[in-house]
Amino acid sequence: MKQMDGTADTPELARLYEDFAAISTSPLWTQRDDLMPMAPSPRAVPYVWRWKQLFDIAKRSGALVPVGRGGERRAIGLANPGLPGTAYATPTLWCAIQYLGRHETAPEHRHAQNAFRFVIEGEGVWTVVNGDPVAMRRGDLLLTPGWHFHGHHNDTDQPMAWIDGLDVPLSHYTDVGFFEFGSERVTDEASPSVSRNERLWAHPGLRPLSELEARTSSPLMAYRWEHTDRALTEQLALEDEGQPATVEQGHAAIRYVNPTTGGDVMPTLRAEFHRLRPGASTPPRHEVGSSVWQVFEGAGIVTLGGEEHSLEKGDLFVVPSWTSWSLAAESQLDLFRFNDGPVIDALGFARSYVPGRD
Amino acid sequence: MKQMDGTADTPELARLYEDFAAISTSPLWTQRDDLMPMAPSPRAVPYVWRWKQLFDIAKRSGALVPVGRGGERRAIGLANPGLPGTAYATPTLWCAIQYLGRHETAPEHRHAQNAFRFVIEGEGVWTVVNGDPVAMRRGDLLLTPGWHFHGHHNDTDQPMAWIDGLDVPLSHYTDVGFFEFGSERVTDEASPSVSRNERLWAHPGLRPLSELEARTSSPLMAYRWEHTDRALTEQLALEDEGQPATVEQGHAAIRYVNPTTGGDVMPTLRAEFHRLRPGASTPPRHEVGSSVWQVFEGAGIVTLGGEEHSLEKGDLFVVPSWTSWSLAAESQLDLFRFNDGPVIDALGFARSYVPGRD
Amino acid sequence: MKQMDGTADTPELARLYEDFAAISTSPLWTQRDDLMPMAPSPRAVPYVWRWKQLFDIAKRSGALVPVGRGGERRAIGLANPGLPGTAYATPTLWCAIQYLGRHETAPEHRHAQNAFRFVIEGEGVWTVVNGDPVAMRRGDLLLTPGWHFHGHHNDTDQPMAWIDGLDVPLSHYTDVGFFEFGSERVTDEASPSVSRNERLWAHPGLRPLSELEARTSSPLMAYRWEHTDRALTEQLALEDEGQPATVEQGHAAIRYVNPTTGGDVMPTLRAEFHRLRPGASTPPRHEVGSSVWQVFEGAGIVTLGGEEHSLEKGDLFVVPSWTSWSLAAESQLDLFRFNDGPVIDALGFARSYVPGRD
Amino acid sequence: MKQMDGTADTPELARLYEDFAAISTSPLWTQRDDLMPMAPSPRAVPYVWRWKQLFDIAKRSGALVPVGRGGERRAIGLANPGLPGTAYATPTLWCAIQYLGRHETAPEHRHAQNAFRFVIEGEGVWTVVNGDPVAMRRGDLLLTPGWHFHGHHNDTDQPMAWIDGLDVPLSHYTDVGFFEFGSERVTDEASPSVSRNERLWAHPGLRPLSELEARTSSPLMAYRWEHTDRALTEQLALEDEGQPATVEQGHAAIRYVNPTTGGDVMPTLRAEFHRLRPGASTPPRHEVGSSVWQVFEGAGIVTLGGEEHSLEKGDLFVVPSWTSWSLAAESQLDLFRFNDGPVIDALGFARSYVPGRD
Repeated sequence: MKQMDGTADTPELARLYEDFAAISTSPLWTQRDDLMPMAPSPRAVPYVWRWKQLFDIAKRSGALVPVGRGGERRAIGLANPGLPGTAYATPTLWCAIQYLGRHETAPEHRHAQNAFRFVIEGEGVWTVVNGDPVAMRRGDLLLTPGWHFHGHHNDTDQPMAWIDGLDVPLSHYTDVGFFEFGSERVTDEASPSVSRNERLWAHPGLRPLSELEARTSSPLMAYRWEHTDRALTEQLALEDEGQPATVEQGHAAIRYVNPTTGGDVMPTLRAEFHRLRPGASTPPRHEVGSSVWQVFEGAGIVTLGGEEHSLEKGDLFVVPSWTSWSLAAESQLDLFRFNDGPVIDALGFARSYVPGRD
Repeated sequence: MKQMDGTADTPELARLYEDFAAISTSPLWTQRDDLMPMAPSPRAVPYVWRWKQLFDIAKRSGALVPVGRGGERRAIGLANPGLPGTAYATPTLWCAIQYLGRHETAPEHRHAQNAFRFVIEGEGVWTVVNGDPVAMRRGDLLLTPGWHFHGHHNDTDQPMAWIDGLDVPLSHYTDVGFFEFGSERVTDEASPSVSRNERLWAHPGLRPLSELEARTSSPLMAYRWEHTDRALTEQLALEDEGQPATVEQGHAAIRYVNPTTGGDVMPTLRAEFHRLRPGASTPPRHEVGSSVWQVFEGAGIVTLGGEEHSLEKGDLFVVPSWTSWSLAAESQLDLFRFNDGPVIDALGFARSYVPGRD
Repeated sequence: MKQMDGTADTPELARLYEDFAAISTSPLWTQRDDLMPMAPSPRAVPYVWRWKQLFDIAKRSGALVPVGRGGERRAIGLANPGLPGTAYATPTLWCAIQYLGRHETAPEHRHAQNAFRFVIEGEGVWTVVNGDPVAMRRGDLLLTPGWHFHGHHNDTDQPMAWIDGLDVPLSHYTDVGFFEFGSERVTDEASPSVSRNERLWAHPGLRPLSELEARTSSPLMAYRWEHTDRALTEQLALEDEGQPATVEQGHAAIRYVNPTTGGDVMPTLRAEFHRLRPGASTPPRHEVGSSVWQVFEGAGIVTLGGEEHSLEKGDLFVVPSWTSWSLAAESQLDLFRFNDGPVIDALGFARSYVPGRD
Repeated sequence: MKQMDGTADTPELARLYEDFAAISTSPLWTQRDDLMPMAPSPRAVPYVWRWKQLFDIAKRSGALVPVGRGGERRAIGLANPGLPGTAYATPTLWCAIQYLGRHETAPEHRHAQNAFRFVIEGEGVWTVVNGDPVAMRRGDLLLTPGWHFHGHHNDTDQPMAWIDGLDVPLSHYTDVGFFEFGSERVTDEASPSVSRNERLWAHPGLRPLSELEARTSSPLMAYRWEHTDRALTEQLALEDEGQPATVEQGHAAIRYVNPTTGGDVMPTLRAEFHRLRPGASTPPRHEVGSSVWQVFEGAGIVTLGGEEHSLEKGDLFVVPSWTSWSLAAESQLDLFRFNDGPVIDALGFARSYVPGRD
């Protein structure tokens, strides 16, 4: 009798395999090792995108493709070469550069998918979230959680570009998305330097007594660079004083959190900011789940699955699941990171490994 | 200037679209409505598999394909016609009929993926979970949560078949799987009628004082038919007495739960059992997330996305996300159901809709 | 200048201490070591009450004092000698023997305070909880969580006695109680052997699909002796087979839990049942929080704060906070225990200590 | 036969009541209505303490009573006139004015009890918490959660006074306290304007990646006035703009929270700050649980159980459980409040009532 390899070397076996297909079935035994590998074996590949190229093509798109209803956003997605035919950075994460010309508006809409913006340079655009205009400036993280109406408008004579992060690949794969069009223009064209949600929520350790319920997503829509920078600066200063504060020697990092729970900002997306001192490096690390990183400032080297890539300001790279990654900083190296950590944690699949540690 | 439709009707535009691809990027605006539909628009289709066909082909496989190391299991997966090239019932769920001949053994292994068995008929196989032999009998739900070693051995002169449910499509898509081979034979060939985990945990409202920690997955590996049947019988009797107990008139149902939390049995899979009185029916219902159902006993009609299908004992059907479903019972209709509800809930995407109710 | 001992040896000091009182203040320094001892230093004392005496006086009360509106219950509280002027077993726990004569009824009422009954002997009384009659039989734990209407009626020609446990001392101290009178007679005089809540909830690992919300208190009002006894019997059998199951050698135990959470049955009261093999003993153990125990069956010795007390069926004893306790079984020794564990845990004060272990 | 009133009008009854006492028991029926009132009926009374009197007597104590080991703190507790023989503000809350002379030190110790300081005026003292010096300044809330070593030292030529809040009455009543002496002097005499814990934690919406575990108590030891004031100012400004932000018209309020959970700062104590516009008032409100309030700035009227009391800067008042309270502001009225809310919530006893609302 034949081994479990799916090879149909007898007429009966051949007929069996044909009949599997005829009744919409498929044997496990011929595909078990592909479907259930010894360790994660992602199709997505480690990859680096250069900011200069992204910014240049975004600018060209700005000249050629108008923003408008239907397409909705002038956003250009990072398309992982290991996932051909998609515009996915990883199986769970979407990442795009979005570009808005002088005085342009991206119309309002809402969707079940969670989204954020991170600003690598420039300012002058306001994201209006459920009617609350939120200024976008270099170093800021801006949230638009699921089913919040949002649009963007550029209040200046200068174009602006930033990155968008979404859970679109996962939500598309799992068939959970809803979408609704909103106003053609943003519903509030004011351009305050501080949004209303910040005025309510951006006070450390304080919450409004009128808002005591836990929220699935953060009610704070803007995480400002001044706070992030100060937190990282203090961690390194504390390290200098011999106090515990950093993740590992020379490596400061914060996680952006939902102030109503202390947990991740949105149920599908985790966001962090990392800073390495000049000369610092991190050990190779394997983690379940995939990440996208962007260099905010500085220069260094990322090693992805054993291969080194130089990094400059604005460069983006993806780390597929269980692919080892390590960073080495030439100058001070500041990086923004987002990943699918809340998904991996909620589903009980979290695991990490640093060779040489147990 | 051109609309956001991706048509490249000028040389500059044509070159822009070529350059997107050249640097591994892809515009959102040409695919936004596919990626982010107004409501879930699954590729998976509603589909019914007939138990007689499945059982027949499983039996033929039993004669032609040995169980053994590598293939691991004689399991034949339901392959959704809307997901060609896969053996997936839905994008998140795997469902297979597994067949074990007289005195055969499926070797031990463990994997990060969560799994269960549900038994539609027969008995005589023991699933050995981390060394604890668990009898499999008609109507029982048997768990093998992630990273628990498990094998199956048939202690009788009769073959046995049952269904397996796993989160393989989701775990494969998200690249979270690990796998490890165990013993060639099961590590304990005893055939007790009650497993050790049941002796510790299957006491209503009681838990061992030596086990007070919450567990990600249920520590109870067997949910016996006698309990399920009694719970449903009581719900209908209570309904007859005018007491609240059923989901809706004539429709009793239980959810299998983790006794350490009261929540789902495993972090990626929800399991339920439903019973409709003869003549009872349910209204059309849309739900985010996908389900697989199996008729345990009785006959009736399922309406999937507006199309009626007759149901008999053992028949399986899938309900893709947001596809409306309703049931009508001719005789008393007993059905087992599993779905990706814990995933949908944890990620904040749950939504349901019954036309006519708000 | 005077030390911080509160002694007023100068006229100025004497005047100061007088003036403290005059403006309703009091210095900390003269009472700090009483208020904040090095370890818990309870006023409540370890104490043993004899079932024979309790039962005898309850019977005499039955002859002399009618049950009725106002007094509400013929319940005789264990009055800790260390807490004179109260009827408290410990600062947080009330425990009483309640006695109901043939065909008597204790009228319905409800209160914020949580309560339960545990039955040491007899049967024939039904506790009606929110209109659902719950039979009381030897070995059963019956709940009446806060703000549930409840009354008791004796459906037989025999009197019946049992113990009541409540959080009255704590709720009285913290001023949280509400009370409301209900029906003079129980609202349902039926005498079913199984209550409706059991028919809905007493199925291991199953919950009604119509009841998916977590509940503060258990929806299951009766924990039957047959289940408790079987769980303990199995733990000892598993221990005999070399399997982990018991708390420590020869000491089986279960905690009664809320099936919607896996946690304690009520937010202020924890309930457990312990079984020691003949000859088994437990090491001296200190625990924050106070407990009441009742011997259900068997004979043995309890050592409380170093002093030995013999135990027989029905005897009750209290263990004040941090008082060391240990048990030694002559015959098989079955004990029911309740304590304020959920309070201690929720407030972050849990600590325990077994000399010789660390 | 006699009614359940406990009157012993026959020899048999008299003997019964004697025998209850003889075997350390006590009938419920004679005391049921006291123990289980229709609504909370606290012994603690509403009361107002005048800051001028407290400060004056604290100053006199400073001259006459040295701070030192044993007494530990020059703290003068508010002694509720309804709780004679204690120094308790309410059955659960301790509140004291603490006074530290020029260059004095209150030695280090730790205890299971949770504590905080709130500063009504002055500065120049550092509280050293587990070796981390925390500056104390007007308007700041400073935490010393259970089992954290802490001492205070005055680094200036001026005395300083503030209020201490602790859970001493509750922890004493429930016998949960442990105490340990530490250094005679504070372990770090530095006087930084910002403490290390603030440098790690006081960044809105950010947490150190090295500290991802949830904590029972807040890791942030200082909540600075500048943040509190800004949060309240913004709430009132948002109200002026027609946006939801305040608790009710003219009444802004924040709760101090644990940034790792979004919940209360410590498991037994809740802290809030309230601001009323000039002329604003609140409706009479009944709440389960007791509170202590201090006027931080401004003047107004508090009505406690129907009786009006004028309020000035620094005045303290207690609201026993279920006693109605309302505030009316003459000038802008700023108040600090703490209470036993986390206890009441955890034990399931929360309830509130505003007559005229339902």
